[in-house]
Amino acid sequence: MAGYTAPTRDLRFVINELIDLAQYRDLPGFAEATNDVVDAVLEEGGKFASEVLAPLNRVGDVEGCTRNADGSVTTPTGFADAYRQFREAGWGGVSQPVEWGGQGLPLVLGFAIEEILCGANVGFSLYPGLTGSAITAIDAVASPELKQLYLPRMTAGDWLGTMNLTEPHCGTDLGQIRTRAVPQTDGTYAITGTKIFISAGEHDFTENIIHLVLAKTPDAPDSSKGISLFLVPKFLVSPDGTLGERNAVSCGALEHKMGIHGNATCVMNYDGARGWLLGEENRGLAAMFIMMNAARLGVGMQGLGQAEVAYQNGAAYALERRQGRALTGAVDPQQAADLLVVHPDVRRMLMDAKAFTEGMRALALWTGMQVELAEKAPDQAAREKANDWVGLMTPVIKGYGTDQGFATAVAMQQVWGGHGYIAENGMEQFVRDARIPMIYEGTNGIQAMDLVGRKLPAHGGRAIQAFFATIDSECAAAQGDERLAGIVAGLGKANGEMKAATMWFLQNAPANPNHGGAGAFAYLHIAGIVSLGLMWLRMARVAAKALDDAAGDKAFYEAKLVTARYFAERSLPDAGALRRKIAAGADSMMALPAEAFAAA
Amino acid sequence: MAGYTAPTRDLRFVINELIDLAQYRDLPGFAEATNDVVDAVLEEGGKFASEVLAPLNRVGDVEGCTRNADGSVTTPTGFADAYRQFREAGWGGVSQPVEWGGQGLPLVLGFAIEEILCGANVGFSLYPGLTGSAITAIDAVASPELKQLYLPRMTAGDWLGTMNLTEPHCGTDLGQIRTRAVPQTDGTYAITGTKIFISAGEHDFTENIIHLVLAKTPDAPDSSKGISLFLVPKFLVSPDGTLGERNAVSCGALEHKMGIHGNATCVMNYDGARGWLLGEENRGLAAMFIMMNAARLGVGMQGLGQAEVAYQNGAAYALERRQGRALTGAVDPQQAADLLVVHPDVRRMLMDAKAFTEGMRALALWTGMQVELAEKAPDQAAREKANDWVGLMTPVIKGYGTDQGFATAVAMQQVWGGHGYIAENGMEQFVRDARIPMIYEGTNGIQAMDLVGRKLPAHGGRAIQAFFATIDSECAAAQGDERLAGIVAGLGKANGEMKAATMWFLQNAPANPNHGGAGAFAYLHIAGIVSLGLMWLRMARVAAKALDDAAGDKAFYEAKLVTARYFAERSLPDAGALRRKIAAGADSMMALPAEAFAAA
Repeated sequence: MAGYTAPTRDLRFVINELIDLAQYRDLPGFAEATNDVVDAVLEEGGKFASEVLAPLNRVGDVEGCTRNADGSVTTPTGFADAYRQFREAGWGGVSQPVEWGGQGLPLVLGFAIEEILCGANVGFSLYPGLTGSAITAIDAVASPELKQLYLPRMTAGDWLGTMNLTEPHCGTDLGQIRTRAVPQTDGTYAITGTKIFISAGEHDFTENIIHLVLAKTPDAPDSSKGISLFLVPKFLVSPDGTLGERNAVSCGALEHKMGIHGNATCVMNYDGARGWLLGEENRGLAAMFIMMNAARLGVGMQGLGQAEVAYQNGAAYALERRQGRALTGAVDPQQAADLLVVHPDVRRMLMDAKAFTEGMRALALWTGMQVELAEKAPDQAAREKANDWVGLMTPVIKGYGTDQGFATAVAMQQVWGGHGYIAENGMEQFVRDARIPMIYEGTNGIQAMDLVGRKLPAHGGRAIQAFFATIDSECAAAQGDERLAGIVAGLGKANGEMKAATMWFLQNAPANPNHGGAGAFAYLHIAGIVSLGLMWLRMARVAAKALDDAAGDKAFYEAKLVTARYFAERSLPDAGALRRKIAAGADSMMALPAEAFAAA
Repeated sequence: MAGYTAPTRDLRFVINELIDLAQYRDLPGFAEATNDVVDAVLEEGGKFASEVLAPLNRVGDVEGCTRNADGSVTTPTGFADAYRQFREAGWGGVSQPVEWGGQGLPLVLGFAIEEILCGANVGFSLYPGLTGSAITAIDAVASPELKQLYLPRMTAGDWLGTMNLTEPHCGTDLGQIRTRAVPQTDGTYAITGTKIFISAGEHDFTENIIHLVLAKTPDAPDSSKGISLFLVPKFLVSPDGTLGERNAVSCGALEHKMGIHGNATCVMNYDGARGWLLGEENRGLAAMFIMMNAARLGVGMQGLGQAEVAYQNGAAYALERRQGRALTGAVDPQQAADLLVVHPDVRRMLMDAKAFTEGMRALALWTGMQVELAEKAPDQAAREKANDWVGLMTPVIKGYGTDQGFATAVAMQQVWGGHGYIAENGMEQFVRDARIPMIYEGTNGIQAMDLVGRKLPAHGGRAIQAFFATIDSECAAAQGDERLAGIVAGLGKANGEMKAATMWFLQNAPANPNHGGAGAFAYLHIAGIVSLGLMWLRMARVAAKALDDAAGDKAFYEAKLVTARYFAERSLPDAGALRRKIAAGADSMMALPAEAFAAA
């Protein structure tokens, strides 16, 4: 059966050596995050993931969830007990504010734990998964009373949160939502409508569930400018924090899905449920986007986590299964055949997976650090710079990260040959589970449009200019070290392609916005490739220095140098092809009449 | 629910206009294949597929097969009855030899029917799917008595055939097989061993099942040179053709798989079963490869068929679901939102799918024509040329065709957004079903090695040189027509990249065979892209001529010109990136010690 081991060595490398957490010890919470604390959190988190969550991954897939006659939902065997342990260990509160009872540790640690949970059991991870971003949104816009009433219990994991946007007729296009919120005399609202695809909408983990729900007030504009955000608890909460009567919200059905069977994906019916306005009326989308941006980074971690567990199991098989002989002559002549790992095409898939997972881990955690700096850095310029990075990288981590996460799961299934198609071996579950992150929290096409349509032009292109300048200067600084020559050359060339693609948009999209739309997806992938290239350059520099310093663990650092070169040779060249596709524009893409796509 | 409509218009275009079947009317069987006959076969096949097979596609997925206590297998509701109709209509014998009771129509028609079956219900198609290639193998190597006894009944579809290669410990590496064949005094062999992943190994469609089984005789060399091929019927067949006693072969279990649930994928136990040698002892692999090559083309048709049905349903959703507004302004201002099809990123996915399915259909059927010419062309040079083409294109159609078939199914699921992840909508089944063709009949990594290691160097590179020369001359012949300029330029450039990649192998692989292995997969994809580019050039030329001739159906031909240009702009650029990856060689790919891939 497929297993999971948290990549603690690589996480420590990224946190302690690449990001170098120690340099930020003046930030709140960072003084406590010594290397020993980081190690302890990762070790404990990894142990919980391997021993408790990973063994339940297939249980969740096979059993799925059950909606009972009374509308309650029973999660797969062992899930509720695993959550009890999760809550008691405080895994949901690692990086949550101390003010609400969290541990207040650096967000990079929270990101690391998120990767580990998603790797061990993504179906499980989706129950607590949105609570952190719900806390962030509530903290940002709710009244002090609501915060006081809800945030301590949510931070403790006593209550979990959900995100209710999608309705049967609209997902991407939230201006079309029909759920109504009618103001009541006591200041609350009566919420009525149906929401679909609600992850963890109902379950048996916690005594209460806190739904964040988008709805329209009676006189609101009929567009995305008329959406408000409400907090709707499953059980009403008395001012003293005790639970009152059941609210008029219930799970109408569970969806039958391709994967993440362990998670209860619910149709939620609101029948005049009592809701509390979060923030201002008609400003709900902005409030929800506080939650959404955090959630998108979380979805990126799902792509990474699934890629990592698939990689581990693909690699394990390649180190165990014997088939054929090395092209250069038998490696184990005394055996009936050589290990799969001797074959270049198997290596190709393993190296692709290694280069992606390590590169994406670095990018995601680096971005987690910037999320915190955007808020806490002492000077305004540093906060702005960090915020620009986060805005630019959020669609990249979500979009590119989950596209490649899925591709990695597919490739690792391929390493297993026919045995990868067999359910009991677990590889095909990774593929099914890794498919949904490409879709939810905004499809990857939407991420691409966010990147090209919003993030590129923001502040006169400030974020992307800074990105290019960073790469140019880091490439220049790495000149002359032969060990870095491959990644420096490859990254420089790919960065040039990305600049050219950006310039093409600048010159052509204003006259025809379809040119932006037609190239957006390719641009998302260029951005992903170049961002990972930057991370590989940085990791290679750290590794080269560690080798110069004879820091020990030589094989680890040498592997970083080899993988950086591999990424330069095998991933960065795609930037050129993507740039050419972007520069082709929208003409041939949009030329056919719609009916040309109808079945003959 | 997902539906299916056979792409008869496009099939007729490929058969009647691109291949131009009429020019071959002197070949046996071709005189009968008038346009009217082609139309009638496609119409009837399409009707059967849409009305009988497609409605059973999800039934097969949900129900799966059942192995009963007595070892018999019950197929999903409706499958056996659908097969009765299939057999009565003679769909298995369209292109089978008249000598054995087949209709002897051109193989391109058999290929077209194969695509249709695979599109409508690939789980069903796998029951009769290997019988055609089993017939081909038996016809090529069996004794006259065996042929007379088995081929008429197999051609009629009274008995179906299977292919037994894989064992638990070996699939790719057949030299390791352990199934034993002990000669008996009556000239038969006693076959003992276990085979796994046997498609349609047991079922309730036919009264007998004819297994083609690889096994080793007692004194055979312990390698792939010691493998023999045997015919093992489920029920012994008396010389007069009546069924005798049950043979000692049985289904031990059904596999639980990611997809193709409608098909019974069996563990087959041979307990001293009586088998008849096919061809010579120790020459079994060569005999099996007659079957395998035909089967690989058939697997390519699965990739195409699944891409086509996914495309149809993706397109249908894009023409029905309203979400957001066109970037260039509302197209349907009176509606709450515009159709998905107005969005460039949705168009991108639809155009990619259209360009792939139409291009691959042309390539597959063109190759089907060459299979027949390789055997029946009047002069030796023409037969050799056709045979070279088939050898070169078999791994490309299987490998590239199924990789892109899967990618297309994934993209069409993406068009559906969250609804694509829901089982009842059918899109996720296409993804699961389209995953296995990348694995079986030789993984796509094996296809790549076949292409680079065997097909390229064969006869001093004769096949690939002819391929390049064909492209050069067809590009030259198309110069000057503005409508073809995009595809001519794109194909010329991509062909140049492929030549450069070929040259790189020639110069580098002899010194280090890992260089060949490291670039093989990228080369498979270059070959796929360039081959489809050639087909798009040819289709565009036919379309341009039809428009010049004012042949009617203007929209159809104009769409061909647009799609050719789109393919040139959006697929052919990948050739450059792939060539660069190939030229990177094996060094960074193979540099890490095996233990670098073990979990930390």
